[in-house]
Amino acid sequence: MSNQLFFTPGPSQLYPTISQHLNNAMRENIGSISHRGKKFQMIFQEMKERLSDVLNIPLDYEIFITSSATEIWERIIQNLISNSSYHFVNGSFSERFYDFTTAYKLKSTAHISDFNHEFGEFNVPDEAELISITQNETSIGYSFNPEEIKNIRENNPEKLIALDLVSAVPSIPVDLSHIDTAYFSVQKCFGLPAGMGIWIVGPKCFEVSKAKASKNQIVGSYHSLAALKKNGDKNQTPETPNVLNLYLLKNVLKDMQLKGISSVQNETKYKAALLYQTFNQITELKTVIPHPLNRSKTVCVSEVHGGNKDLIEYLKSEQLIIGSGYGAFKDQHIRIANFPAHSKESIEMLVDEMGKYFEGK
Amino acid sequence: MSNQLFFTPGPSQLYPTISQHLNNAMRENIGSISHRGKKFQMIFQEMKERLSDVLNIPLDYEIFITSSATEIWERIIQNLISNSSYHFVNGSFSERFYDFTTAYKLKSTAHISDFNHEFGEFNVPDEAELISITQNETSIGYSFNPEEIKNIRENNPEKLIALDLVSAVPSIPVDLSHIDTAYFSVQKCFGLPAGMGIWIVGPKCFEVSKAKASKNQIVGSYHSLAALKKNGDKNQTPETPNVLNLYLLKNVLKDMQLKGISSVQNETKYKAALLYQTFNQITELKTVIPHPLNRSKTVCVSEVHGGNKDLIEYLKSEQLIIGSGYGAFKDQHIRIANFPAHSKESIEMLVDEMGKYFEGK
Repeated sequence: MSNQLFFTPGPSQLYPTISQHLNNAMRENIGSISHRGKKFQMIFQEMKERLSDVLNIPLDYEIFITSSATEIWERIIQNLISNSSYHFVNGSFSERFYDFTTAYKLKSTAHISDFNHEFGEFNVPDEAELISITQNETSIGYSFNPEEIKNIRENNPEKLIALDLVSAVPSIPVDLSHIDTAYFSVQKCFGLPAGMGIWIVGPKCFEVSKAKASKNQIVGSYHSLAALKKNGDKNQTPETPNVLNLYLLKNVLKDMQLKGISSVQNETKYKAALLYQTFNQITELKTVIPHPLNRSKTVCVSEVHGGNKDLIEYLKSEQLIIGSGYGAFKDQHIRIANFPAHSKESIEMLVDEMGKYFEGK
Repeated sequence: MSNQLFFTPGPSQLYPTISQHLNNAMRENIGSISHRGKKFQMIFQEMKERLSDVLNIPLDYEIFITSSATEIWERIIQNLISNSSYHFVNGSFSERFYDFTTAYKLKSTAHISDFNHEFGEFNVPDEAELISITQNETSIGYSFNPEEIKNIRENNPEKLIALDLVSAVPSIPVDLSHIDTAYFSVQKCFGLPAGMGIWIVGPKCFEVSKAKASKNQIVGSYHSLAALKKNGDKNQTPETPNVLNLYLLKNVLKDMQLKGISSVQNETKYKAALLYQTFNQITELKTVIPHPLNRSKTVCVSEVHGGNKDLIEYLKSEQLIIGSGYGAFKDQHIRIANFPAHSKESIEMLVDEMGKYFEGK
């Protein structure tokens, strides 16, 4: 079983150094150290410094630890939205965040699109306090055009913009200077075991949360922005967090810095090109996202003529595990993760095997 | 550094089999498997079956995964309390849950006691919907008398009772048949790395949460009881959880079952007796909790005449890490965890070293 390679869109293949870092973690007693002690504080601080460097996070932004990106949707709602938000929805994950606003009795609205074209004309309602954009829609492999994000920012200078970076960073460059808050989970492009979300929060968010709290509105409890900031200033967390994952993230960030983030991003481009070329060359496959600009480089999705089942099974027999479609596309699409943990050689091997499978048909 | 033994009250010494289970997890690709797949479902189901056996959980109770016990305080408030709750507070952790009710604008009340005597006379207000009891107050080493819990149940048959089992189970027996919901985190008595809380929920809680939701009140989003139950019924979770910790918990539960839970509990008693005997024999030490019935068997707390600093430093030089006091008692108390990961031999060594230290004074 250990020979399997996971191209599933998260959890996915672990970053190749994880096993060694886990051994070191055991040697260094990372599972036993106090989250109120110096060693923890040093690890947290180092993670934040490395992440700030890797993602080029503006200096006055804070970085917090949560348990998942899913949790961060709820924390954004609790802290940053009083009445309504506006959501660009073009897949299951952007839709789920929008659904959370209903659970919180907000009067949010959404611009619902499909993956066949760029988001067309839209009007952000005046009353929307926050605009939600999903950089990389993992369910369908749609990548949001960065130029469009700039336009949205320019046309809405007063509103908060929240950017979902799940399965995007650090594989593709993002410009956080246009963004008020962004977040991701670690089991995608960082190649970690699941169980941690990272929340990046700009200064305007703290003002908004404070203003909401001062109006006697509920902003949550241990993960209110005030509680996160109060603890974060000491390189601590309000609760006992996933210390082991924090340690792994710090170390994988270091590994990626040593390799060079531009190398990581260039390899991502190369491997994505190879995957889309393969989808293009094989008659039975068809890239789902028509506009090249919107094709995700990290989650490459193809329709499979006649269904995905036999292809997935064949690849599995070769120890290559790829993702099925999401939701309604479960049996029709394949989703192939192209994360930093996936070496050029492994993607080359995968496309070779896909070629072999369809040649034999 | 790897020779250090951690007697800190959590995170603490890892259960001795953790390292081996982590190696197996890497071999079995636990960090890469999908949380929507069969293998995950089997692990989750096995964990629930083993935990039900170990804690003798009533058959109609559900078991859910969260990120921490701290999170569960918030989920209890969101799902189970509309206006007010009643809290037995006798330390920092029971107080913190009570504080969360203020953050949620509830009109909760508390019976605030100190550790010098049992909770005296109290009246649970009629309007309180839920009674919160902390079985083992980790901050001060106070253990709530199980007979008193029975009385509270008998006198309040209609109210929900929530029992905080952090640093209590499986080291001491608890009777969950009197309890509507209970919870713990895994970095205490289960000897796991931090980053997971377990929430045990009885049938009445689902009714209460449903009734709250039907009145158009907010019950949260991905971790509402309805969402947890909908996913839990399929042995799934609403979000990508800490799969690695779930795997570790399943395996440590199995290890403890093989050893026998009564053995675990008997050893706990023996080691606790040894620690309290030591506090009693050494002039400079004084057990903090006067009434033997209320002395925690898992977090043994002593005052240190003249301050704890030198003792803690001495033990550290011998590779034995104990906890300092909590909050206001930071410099005065020592807290010694007595969890299943702490062998009889390691506690014997610890009390020997404490004896040596004070002899030399």
